[in-house]
Amino acid sequence: MTATTHLETDIRDALLSAVRPDQVSKETTDLKKFATDRGPVTDYQEPLAVVWAESVDDVQAVMRLATGHGVPVVPRGAGTGVSGGANATRGCVVLDLERMNRILELNPEDEVARVEPGVVNADLNKVAEPHGLMYAPDPASYKVSTIGGNVATNAGGLRCAKYGVTRDAVLGLDVVLADGELIHTGHRTFKGVAGYDLTSLFVGSEGTLGIVVGATVRLKYLPTDVRTLAVFFPDVQAAAAGVLALGAKRVQPCILELLDGPSLQELDSRNGSNLAQRGTALLLAQFDGLAAVQETDIAMEALTGLGGTVNLEDPDEAARLVELRRHSRGMEAESEVSVGEDIAVPRSQLVHYVTALQEMASRHGVGVRIIAHAGDGNLHPMFWAPELDEATDAALHAALNESMDKALELGGTITGEHGIGQYKLKWLHLEQSSSVRELQRKIKDLFDPQGILNPGKAIS
Amino acid sequence: MTATTHLETDIRDALLSAVRPDQVSKETTDLKKFATDRGPVTDYQEPLAVVWAESVDDVQAVMRLATGHGVPVVPRGAGTGVSGGANATRGCVVLDLERMNRILELNPEDEVARVEPGVVNADLNKVAEPHGLMYAPDPASYKVSTIGGNVATNAGGLRCAKYGVTRDAVLGLDVVLADGELIHTGHRTFKGVAGYDLTSLFVGSEGTLGIVVGATVRLKYLPTDVRTLAVFFPDVQAAAAGVLALGAKRVQPCILELLDGPSLQELDSRNGSNLAQRGTALLLAQFDGLAAVQETDIAMEALTGLGGTVNLEDPDEAARLVELRRHSRGMEAESEVSVGEDIAVPRSQLVHYVTALQEMASRHGVGVRIIAHAGDGNLHPMFWAPELDEATDAALHAALNESMDKALELGGTITGEHGIGQYKLKWLHLEQSSSVRELQRKIKDLFDPQGILNPGKAIS
Repeated sequence: MTATTHLETDIRDALLSAVRPDQVSKETTDLKKFATDRGPVTDYQEPLAVVWAESVDDVQAVMRLATGHGVPVVPRGAGTGVSGGANATRGCVVLDLERMNRILELNPEDEVARVEPGVVNADLNKVAEPHGLMYAPDPASYKVSTIGGNVATNAGGLRCAKYGVTRDAVLGLDVVLADGELIHTGHRTFKGVAGYDLTSLFVGSEGTLGIVVGATVRLKYLPTDVRTLAVFFPDVQAAAAGVLALGAKRVQPCILELLDGPSLQELDSRNGSNLAQRGTALLLAQFDGLAAVQETDIAMEALTGLGGTVNLEDPDEAARLVELRRHSRGMEAESEVSVGEDIAVPRSQLVHYVTALQEMASRHGVGVRIIAHAGDGNLHPMFWAPELDEATDAALHAALNESMDKALELGGTITGEHGIGQYKLKWLHLEQSSSVRELQRKIKDLFDPQGILNPGKAIS
Repeated sequence: MTATTHLETDIRDALLSAVRPDQVSKETTDLKKFATDRGPVTDYQEPLAVVWAESVDDVQAVMRLATGHGVPVVPRGAGTGVSGGANATRGCVVLDLERMNRILELNPEDEVARVEPGVVNADLNKVAEPHGLMYAPDPASYKVSTIGGNVATNAGGLRCAKYGVTRDAVLGLDVVLADGELIHTGHRTFKGVAGYDLTSLFVGSEGTLGIVVGATVRLKYLPTDVRTLAVFFPDVQAAAAGVLALGAKRVQPCILELLDGPSLQELDSRNGSNLAQRGTALLLAQFDGLAAVQETDIAMEALTGLGGTVNLEDPDEAARLVELRRHSRGMEAESEVSVGEDIAVPRSQLVHYVTALQEMASRHGVGVRIIAHAGDGNLHPMFWAPELDEATDAALHAALNESMDKALELGGTITGEHGIGQYKLKWLHLEQSSSVRELQRKIKDLFDPQGILNPGKAIS
């Protein structure tokens, strides 16, 4: 840490004039805690201060000060992002929105809720459930992550195969712009086409265009019936082929997850389960709604004869398997190093891509574990090695780079649901042309001429 | 018409140097034919010329010329828009895209199609059907309107209550910018969060930010089973209440249309049907998919006891009723004048809003017919009078203005699916703040610094 500068003192004094003392911290423990999210850290910086906004007014006051002092602001929800989108940048203030956690309205007839950004995803679902409704996007972090953070990253999840991602759920937003002005985008109705779709522009923009201080979201019908199949295959290619076999029958699972053998072994070693004994790869398919039984029957027929064993799980075991899957990311053992990503490929390329991943891991002398939201073609491959040294590090990153190139070659994307954040900027030029990146840069400049909104994130 | 100017001659010569002679017309019949779409005409202008693009290269050549000469370009699909979004503007070239009508790819495993902008909506569905797939957005014009036009207006339709609007179907776009540069937005995968959502920004922008020359769309599963209920109520309020009763049971119709008594009478007089004899208002509910029978049973129970008669229609009659509904817009008789719109309100306000519409029509001494995509809260009220004179015209427009104000008061929007176009600009400030309109203007300037892309449309 450098010595305290005038700017730091000025900003801290200014913040203290705008909000209560217990809403600002410059304590080292806080600065360290709010320096990073759960993504890789490419440029460790501690913020000048952390501010906890409790109202739209607070956010407006902070942004006015930030604009006046030219100080960067990094907005933050629960800090569960995995691409470094909430990592602090040099000389920034971290603007924490977790205290803005009120569900302002839930209208069961309109099937709409209005929430502050700090509302936890699972909390909204708890309030919606008695009305037969749900907020559909369910990132693995749904028990702790916030709607504001979900909006910032356009979060996906397990059930978005059937129910859509965050963008599909957001009808309108309240946004504080760089200069502190509050605007409202979108509409409360299911449909609306007045003017440009500013709502979708803010969704997934990772706090680089404005601070989301409110969201109007559409709720979906809570399914009445659920059936779950666990299909164990002799290899991951067969499991990936199962995804296509299911698609060919035109039935839509709400969850369709793929886990390869090494992932099953890792889950077993951490949870005492015996998944790996049951097969070398698992396809976990869940169907919901009034047609769950019929769809499950069709799925069982489609998946039988592909070399796997098809098991209809009882509800308790089904819930356990889904929870195991939800927590299977970030499951690197203490004793290993790993790099993982968030590729998506067209579904027809799934089998080919998992083979390519195994081949590149083998060639670079590293391990690979593959888990995937297979219904969406969204894979989270994790390359790993038992311990870190220079050669291993190079091998891991060579494999990772290759996995990006291969995904793009097959018509895929470098990020299906985690966002570019800070970490994936280095690959963005592989996916987007210089013209597209330049257009995005100009949009950024338009909304944030001083470049103070979460600089160095989302776009290059 | 003024005499031919140098600019006109220059542009025509320049166009002839860029494309074949049979791709350009300055014939009066063409200029008249391509001067307007099916929306109201607020400022009749004939274009300088009409150009039929047959390739991306053609569009790029036209845009380079337009930029060089500072000539406005009005892109056009089938011209079926109803807000004047394709009306010619002063001194413009109309760029017709209907000849770019190739389905470039339909991949049944990826459940994705790539199309040129001039592909007719129904033609894509015909090609998708044998694969058990459909392109879901179905504006009333689906038999003739183009995917490019649907993208420009973010078209809705009957089945978007369940399957989403055009924006939900579009994964990526090929766009020619004002200066002729070609860019690609979005992704071919179901999910993707790299950078800002330029795709959604172009969808619904009515050709004011760029010319869509290709679209990658996600297809949905063609439903296997269909059940249709025709529920006749004693008044339109009861029918609107039926929409809420159905929603409360958390079943999702694929079609949920409401028609009031005057609409039924008008349909009868034009088609020889006897709908008005069966009741004073009709709620037409269709369920599809494997749970269609179960959902229909639940719906019948929910709708019984609300004062209406619930009829399960046979497939032929169901198809006839849906087709009648599809053609019920623009059904003004030759002998009358009418003004109609495209309001959406939160569903809980449906009953209240239809009552308000009847009250305002009565107070202004005009008639009103109400049809609605009721599942989405999207109403197409039509105020009418037997003949046009100054007082009638004033009364019609007073009622129309009031219907806009009332919708906004109830948390609604002035346009659910038709777009702002040219006609609805005068009301946009009622819905959007000056800040939001200014942001949109800046985005427009960023993409189109000369202001040549469909000027005077979509944003004010």
